[in-house]
Amino acid sequence: MKLEKMVGERFKERPGDCVIDSHAYMVRGGYMKYVANGIFSQFPVLKRITKKIEDIIRKEMDAIDGQEVLFPVVLPGSLWEESGRYQSVGSELVRLADRNKNPLVLGMTHEEAAVQLVREYATGYSKYPFMIYQIQTKFRDEARPRGGLIRVREFTMKDAYSFHTSQEDLEEYYAKCYHSYRRIFALAGIPEVVTVKSDSGMMGGSVSHEYMLLTPIGEDSIAICSDCDYRANMEAADCITDPDDSGKDEALEKVYTPNCKTIEDLCAFLKISDKKTCKAVVYQKNMTDEYVVVFLRGDLDVNETKLTNYLREAIHPAVITEECGLTAGFIGPVGLDRKKFTVVFDKSLEGKAGLVTGANEAEYHFKGLDISRDVEGSVEYVDVAKIYDGAICPQCGKKTISISRGIEVGNIFQLGTKYSKAMNMTYLDAEGNQQYPIMGCYGIGVGRLAASVCEVSHDDYGPIWPITIAPWQVHLCCIRVDDPEAKATADKLYNDLQAKGIEVIYDDRDTRAGVMFSDADLLGVPVRVIVSPKNLKDGVIEIATRDKKIQKKVALDNTIEEIQAIIAQLTKEIIDTAEAL
Amino acid sequence: MKLEKMVGERFKERPGDCVIDSHAYMVRGGYMKYVANGIFSQFPVLKRITKKIEDIIRKEMDAIDGQEVLFPVVLPGSLWEESGRYQSVGSELVRLADRNKNPLVLGMTHEEAAVQLVREYATGYSKYPFMIYQIQTKFRDEARPRGGLIRVREFTMKDAYSFHTSQEDLEEYYAKCYHSYRRIFALAGIPEVVTVKSDSGMMGGSVSHEYMLLTPIGEDSIAICSDCDYRANMEAADCITDPDDSGKDEALEKVYTPNCKTIEDLCAFLKISDKKTCKAVVYQKNMTDEYVVVFLRGDLDVNETKLTNYLREAIHPAVITEECGLTAGFIGPVGLDRKKFTVVFDKSLEGKAGLVTGANEAEYHFKGLDISRDVEGSVEYVDVAKIYDGAICPQCGKKTISISRGIEVGNIFQLGTKYSKAMNMTYLDAEGNQQYPIMGCYGIGVGRLAASVCEVSHDDYGPIWPITIAPWQVHLCCIRVDDPEAKATADKLYNDLQAKGIEVIYDDRDTRAGVMFSDADLLGVPVRVIVSPKNLKDGVIEIATRDKKIQKKVALDNTIEEIQAIIAQLTKEIIDTAEAL
Repeated sequence: MKLEKMVGERFKERPGDCVIDSHAYMVRGGYMKYVANGIFSQFPVLKRITKKIEDIIRKEMDAIDGQEVLFPVVLPGSLWEESGRYQSVGSELVRLADRNKNPLVLGMTHEEAAVQLVREYATGYSKYPFMIYQIQTKFRDEARPRGGLIRVREFTMKDAYSFHTSQEDLEEYYAKCYHSYRRIFALAGIPEVVTVKSDSGMMGGSVSHEYMLLTPIGEDSIAICSDCDYRANMEAADCITDPDDSGKDEALEKVYTPNCKTIEDLCAFLKISDKKTCKAVVYQKNMTDEYVVVFLRGDLDVNETKLTNYLREAIHPAVITEECGLTAGFIGPVGLDRKKFTVVFDKSLEGKAGLVTGANEAEYHFKGLDISRDVEGSVEYVDVAKIYDGAICPQCGKKTISISRGIEVGNIFQLGTKYSKAMNMTYLDAEGNQQYPIMGCYGIGVGRLAASVCEVSHDDYGPIWPITIAPWQVHLCCIRVDDPEAKATADKLYNDLQAKGIEVIYDDRDTRAGVMFSDADLLGVPVRVIVSPKNLKDGVIEIATRDKKIQKKVALDNTIEEIQAIIAQLTKEIIDTAEAL
Repeated sequence: MKLEKMVGERFKERPGDCVIDSHAYMVRGGYMKYVANGIFSQFPVLKRITKKIEDIIRKEMDAIDGQEVLFPVVLPGSLWEESGRYQSVGSELVRLADRNKNPLVLGMTHEEAAVQLVREYATGYSKYPFMIYQIQTKFRDEARPRGGLIRVREFTMKDAYSFHTSQEDLEEYYAKCYHSYRRIFALAGIPEVVTVKSDSGMMGGSVSHEYMLLTPIGEDSIAICSDCDYRANMEAADCITDPDDSGKDEALEKVYTPNCKTIEDLCAFLKISDKKTCKAVVYQKNMTDEYVVVFLRGDLDVNETKLTNYLREAIHPAVITEECGLTAGFIGPVGLDRKKFTVVFDKSLEGKAGLVTGANEAEYHFKGLDISRDVEGSVEYVDVAKIYDGAICPQCGKKTISISRGIEVGNIFQLGTKYSKAMNMTYLDAEGNQQYPIMGCYGIGVGRLAASVCEVSHDDYGPIWPITIAPWQVHLCCIRVDDPEAKATADKLYNDLQAKGIEVIYDDRDTRAGVMFSDADLLGVPVRVIVSPKNLKDGVIEIATRDKKIQKKVALDNTIEEIQAIIAQLTKEIIDTAEAL
């Protein structure tokens, strides 16, 4: 196609509202257009990229026996009532009504639709296992869309659902899909994507993995061990602390601690380490406002996702009133009314002794706390603390954890029977018994993947698209279209390349070379071919890759072969990387 | 793929709620699943068909320089405010709100989004002309979804928008698109689709065409001349009547017509033809309830779409009350208060005389009416009557009109500047003057096209899919999988065909031949290949086309070549038809 006629404007200035590079380049390069908060239209450049990504995904899904289907975008509310998510999901689920006042929702994920599609079909064990997937528009009413295509409200997603008759079978398929996802990211040009154990949140189920592209602009925090292969989302990373029962012979003693309302004040006053304190953090349950008091080692923070998962209730930071019975700044587990408050003890306190904690009385703390000895009733320790830089690796036990930022480019979940049970999908097993199928689900956001690739593959002038997802393979520039020989040569090259099945964007505008090159940089096409009167005098054409690794002049007669060879080489590098996984 | 593992159940009984054949076969064959009224999921069979249709459409759109883009499904209400359609479109437009109470709509067509995408880009005349298109989900809250995929609420549509700097340029492109559409339908296997002049309804603009597949189950009525090439949607067909001024010398005379409340009663009582009467049909405007009295020749009916277009207001049949000033059954134009009522005279009354009409007085009519002589004030005649079987052809003037039913499988509109003006999209022309671009728009519903093909291409046992959109090219049946030779032969054939790039659905179930064949009939795959122990004894394989035009036994060694030849032949027939258009 000719660049002159391509719809979408390019410009030089970085828009003020673009915080991350991929967003800035996609706006500056005429890839996308803002329509509403978190809602964008795609210009032809981006549409070509997302279509290639979809084709890669489709091929890989088909290769693991996926069957492509299509679920509706608009779903009846009654279907989400069946799973219980009509109520349980927050306002990111858009609820609406049709002309007859029937409740509808906009599909943000399609577990319910998947079960609805197959529950009359898959009633016998011989139909299993199977996997169905779709590539379709989804809408999630995010509170804070951000980062261009990184977090949007409307997006195209590949979502897949597998159905099994045993946990073993699910795990076997899950492993296949795990590998397939690694191939997809490698084929899209980001083999560096890592997998991390994740919290499965509202999806239900237990085992799940996220595919993370590590980058400082990522929204997620990931705990990574520098010594072994442990990687986990902060939400799923166990926080392990050193054993330390020093001071276990100390008696519990109340001490006067004036104005020591924070752990820092307290440690400074008593000249102790914050690791020898038992800190209280207070929340309230969203539904009832009931207080939740979390005790944990003074140097740690609460991971609210872990806490929510444990409580199975939404929470918010507490407002501590005079009447509530808590003494802000001096809360401690000794003598605290565990009938009145939900009290949670973090694992970091297990086996610890000689701790300082609040005495539930203004200006006073206890010294010498040993929870197992001093707290009435049975105490269960649960892990609700945030893992931190330098923490102990839950896998190898060394203090080798570091926290990185990442973009979640995909995720896979073992759902178990959550949806099949809730929606009463059953099959008869070989013995004639009714069973609930076990499900897995597997998602990739297409637009976010495109933006993620751009995020890690660009220079100061624009994206450097991997050839497998690039909008075109070749960007042909004719410098000085007023020169008849240059124009004729470039025109012929354009036609010849297309005849060979090569995708070419052709810039034959009557404009300065500088404008041409900065436009080409913004489009990020991997192979650039430059025809100019100056080079033609020497009988050569200039070929360069967008990443500048290849820059050469080739004889006019060899141009097509050279271009084909470079395309083949770039493609091979990516495929080899994927095959080697 | 193996039929045994394909998701979707097939069954024998025609479901009671399936009125038309395509719907019945698609439900019985496991193509689609009801999710809610007018909302369906697609099983793999249908998804394969719609994907092929989309690929045909995409290729043809690209061939006329279309650039694929993607607009959002969910659009801000403010965008539809700009065009005025947020208010003007009825409840088929779904209006909703996001978490921040911002009004949103579900895109049912994307003129607004198209203008929004390009209005900053196309500000100079040199950017024109261009065409952008998408293939995307749409939602239209139809009051009466029906006929399976024929009229749904959620559907996938290809919608294209072209932008021009002159009417001539639009017309030139419109002609290209007109031809492109004929090719698309031919390539999808229904070259018999005809074009008809249409009413452009809520889209605005003037010239427009619909592509109609003539079939008794169609929802649209089309006036077709049997003598010339005139074809028009009923809504757009001029109703022309014979000139007849007989009785123009008669004086206006009031006659007593007891109990003659209908035209039939009146004609019988006075022994006259209904063509010599002037009938009144009364409506009320939806917004104000104001009465609209339409006078037309007694044998004709009002076409409400024509009337609405003329009035530019929505109407409903009137409730005639005692106080309203109209004498039901005896309404006539003489002495009727044209300030109080909107009075419309149909063209069928122009130049007519000697008519009988109501006297606006119970039990009385006038004889000898000559509107030009007897009705006070100026009279404008407008065409609001329904064309009918045997009517005069507006093109050749013969009484050769017949009314057929059809399914609208596509439409193209010349929109003019309706949207560019309303949304203030302008460009500078060569002289530096600001101008509004002239637009065209072009739609095809993907699912409806699939259903339409099925509607005209099936037998009593299931669909007969044209090879260009068939879910697979070959349906391979192994009769008696318990026979090792048959199984081995079929397995090898399955692998060999796939290695040749042929799409095969393979039925190797341990089931009766009858079940296999009825399943194959429901899947409608064009080439059927049957491996059986009986034939293998003779060293042959059976090949048949779904339409039974080819049925033969071929030597085992020649099977692949024979299949390839049949596929090539079936494909060639379709492509030749399209090329010949």
